[in-house]
Amino acid sequence: MPPTPLTAELQALDAAHYLHPFTDHQALAAKGARVITHGEGIYVWDSEGQRLLDAMSGLWCVNVGYGRRELADAAHAQMLKLPYYNSFFQTTHEPAVRLAARLAELAPPVAGRRFEHVFYSSSGSEANDTNLRLVRRYWDLLEQPQRKTVISRRNAYHGSTVAAASLSGMGAMHAQGDLPIPGIVHIEQPHFLQHGLAGESEHDFGLRAARWLEAKILELGPERVAAFIGEPVQGAGGVIIPPDSYWPEVQRIVDRYGILLISDEVICAFGRLGHWFAYEKFGLRPDLVTFAKGVTSGYVPLGGTLVGPRVAQVLIERGGEFNHGYTYSGHPVACAVALANLDLLEREDLPGRVRLDTGPYLAQRLAELEAHPLVGRVQSCGFVAALTLVRDKARGLPFPEEQAVGMRCRAHCFGGGLVMRAVGDRMIIAPPLITTRAQIDEMLGLIERALDATLAELRAKGWF
Amino acid sequence: MPPTPLTAELQALDAAHYLHPFTDHQALAAKGARVITHGEGIYVWDSEGQRLLDAMSGLWCVNVGYGRRELADAAHAQMLKLPYYNSFFQTTHEPAVRLAARLAELAPPVAGRRFEHVFYSSSGSEANDTNLRLVRRYWDLLEQPQRKTVISRRNAYHGSTVAAASLSGMGAMHAQGDLPIPGIVHIEQPHFLQHGLAGESEHDFGLRAARWLEAKILELGPERVAAFIGEPVQGAGGVIIPPDSYWPEVQRIVDRYGILLISDEVICAFGRLGHWFAYEKFGLRPDLVTFAKGVTSGYVPLGGTLVGPRVAQVLIERGGEFNHGYTYSGHPVACAVALANLDLLEREDLPGRVRLDTGPYLAQRLAELEAHPLVGRVQSCGFVAALTLVRDKARGLPFPEEQAVGMRCRAHCFGGGLVMRAVGDRMIIAPPLITTRAQIDEMLGLIERALDATLAELRAKGWF
Repeated sequence: MPPTPLTAELQALDAAHYLHPFTDHQALAAKGARVITHGEGIYVWDSEGQRLLDAMSGLWCVNVGYGRRELADAAHAQMLKLPYYNSFFQTTHEPAVRLAARLAELAPPVAGRRFEHVFYSSSGSEANDTNLRLVRRYWDLLEQPQRKTVISRRNAYHGSTVAAASLSGMGAMHAQGDLPIPGIVHIEQPHFLQHGLAGESEHDFGLRAARWLEAKILELGPERVAAFIGEPVQGAGGVIIPPDSYWPEVQRIVDRYGILLISDEVICAFGRLGHWFAYEKFGLRPDLVTFAKGVTSGYVPLGGTLVGPRVAQVLIERGGEFNHGYTYSGHPVACAVALANLDLLEREDLPGRVRLDTGPYLAQRLAELEAHPLVGRVQSCGFVAALTLVRDKARGLPFPEEQAVGMRCRAHCFGGGLVMRAVGDRMIIAPPLITTRAQIDEMLGLIERALDATLAELRAKGWF
Repeated sequence: MPPTPLTAELQALDAAHYLHPFTDHQALAAKGARVITHGEGIYVWDSEGQRLLDAMSGLWCVNVGYGRRELADAAHAQMLKLPYYNSFFQTTHEPAVRLAARLAELAPPVAGRRFEHVFYSSSGSEANDTNLRLVRRYWDLLEQPQRKTVISRRNAYHGSTVAAASLSGMGAMHAQGDLPIPGIVHIEQPHFLQHGLAGESEHDFGLRAARWLEAKILELGPERVAAFIGEPVQGAGGVIIPPDSYWPEVQRIVDRYGILLISDEVICAFGRLGHWFAYEKFGLRPDLVTFAKGVTSGYVPLGGTLVGPRVAQVLIERGGEFNHGYTYSGHPVACAVALANLDLLEREDLPGRVRLDTGPYLAQRLAELEAHPLVGRVQSCGFVAALTLVRDKARGLPFPEEQAVGMRCRAHCFGGGLVMRAVGDRMIIAPPLITTRAQIDEMLGLIERALDATLAELRAKGWF
């Protein structure tokens, strides 16, 4: 069937004018982008009328689902009242102040002390970029300016500005444009399936992986290390859930060397893992917490950093002016939408539902997929999960990279009405937190159908 | 009079929780931030009921003024329809596509060729950060990977991420957090009042200032230079308007050495200087144009880069995947608001009004202020302007820095119902483009009153 006139028009304009993020423009223009037109609940529709169950929440962000009138109304009211004002000229406004106070209330205390302060930006990238400047400023103020280096992990994702992409550990990003910048180094990720040794338990692997941090600190000299940054669960890297032993050992190590800990919760906060903040789940005691995405459910760009007492005290009492900030820091519309979004998360107790009800149910249903011939390990944590596609279940053998099995499976998902993402051959999901048990069943049916279609394709090609 | 309970409550919460951009938190907390509650047209109100004429358009962004229902309605409708979707998964959506096409139409052609492509971000910082990656990618693809260095100018402002702050030439920013990063160097700004020589004409100074670029290129070796970046008129640096001879000579130099030219129009585009884009006004032929602020009049965070044919062709035809982008690249609500905002700018012909009517009138009225005892030079360009406060008009002598005369004047402005910004002793304005002749008269009255009050204060202190 030829595309509708609207699809054809928008695809042509798209090809002519829009450079998409992380995309081969020529290849996309040749085939034509899928045009998403509207959304409702956990579903989106394209311009050909196909409905898709969005198991990625947009891009890990639409936590409360699409079409929530409360958020649209909050934006509308704030835009009529005060659509913009800055906080540079000794001025402030109610939405930024109320949201900062609300976040300080929601964030669980660490060792009895609260996260009292917020520094705003408009994205996770900007927030992590800020964090790099914050930790270096902290150590400068403590007269340890040689403490500049931040340790991150390979296959981490912390954003796409030059500094945030440097903090990220993505080889493909570092291959373009001279990254990482100086003073950022990477250790290996706690990815058992890739780095676990024969016969090693997950527990032992978690301890060993955490100690890569200690080895790196000692290699650099602790007096040169400013901070360690990590996602509690790596998202864009393919939903890498570390063994339970990993984070406590990391905490022991950063404590031992007095190094700041940055918990990047752009994906993991606001109910995604069944808690308001993921550091609570993992018993971490971070000094800075990065947030974005779920804070507004993606309805308006907003990001920021929760600044814990250790850093805030030094910055405020000794720092004078921190020469940093964005025009849209504390944007009133973004903050008003965030407040309405937090109201919804709270009223519907979405973190609690994910933690106690739908998260465990999702895990249980997904585990059944391990019976599928294509599926190796299934891993989940709250409302993020990954299935590894394997050529040989018994031996856990992967497919050859050039067969691009993950991307084939993603195409079958989209074709069958499901948005599921492929990271290599890891199929990952992060559904809206409003997803019900019945919708989880529906999603599982769609996943199974996509897996079957992938299997049929691979068999037809003689690859399985 | 004690503050109202609302003011007191919000000031206390502000001090307890909100780390403002570019602010000494301790000092602000001690005195209490001014709470801006609502806006209408060119005015904002604070929580004590004081009305302020906002001659800074928020932060150079509220081009169409406050309280524009069309923009609120556009946001509301888009949020109900599709509040978020990403463009990573070979997917697109109508607002991002339509806005890209619209910008391609609005941007005047350069040497007969159009800016056909747009790369989106959520701020000017992110957009300039992207530009650094784009220009390096461009030269890598042309197999000239040694072309990494970007030349910028001292006192330039290109944003606050690590890379954007590095591109910026602000000493106070570079003093914190180890900036600039490698591969970014700065030449002196074309600021006649600071760098003009005795007896030198502005025209001759403009040529000399442009040739600092040529000298730097030759010093580095042209084969190592990737790009030159500049604001057509420097904004945050204090509204530095270069002599007419400056940009044509810069254009000659970048052409001669084949270097990319980035026109940072975060402030200058969308009517601010009386044109849709400032490169048209100055006859520049940039390869990349940075935009933000005025594209949505600040109602929702949005930024981006217009990518000209020279860069787009290489990137698309030779580049494969550009491994860069943001979750909120092409955010549907931001793009929908931008489209509605461009409609307003077009329908009310705000660029034309500023160019032909209100801009010249503002210049004429401001020029009268040169008669004031405190005012040295008055400079304006479209709807940005600067007054330099001087201790001795005849000899153009500045006040001692420690007298902080600019900040004193800013306090008198705020106190008298006018938002005017101080950059050192340069008092700067960038009013909403809807400002009428009658409102310009009103603004001039407020400026005069603030200047008089400043003068009285300085006389009382024996400083004048």
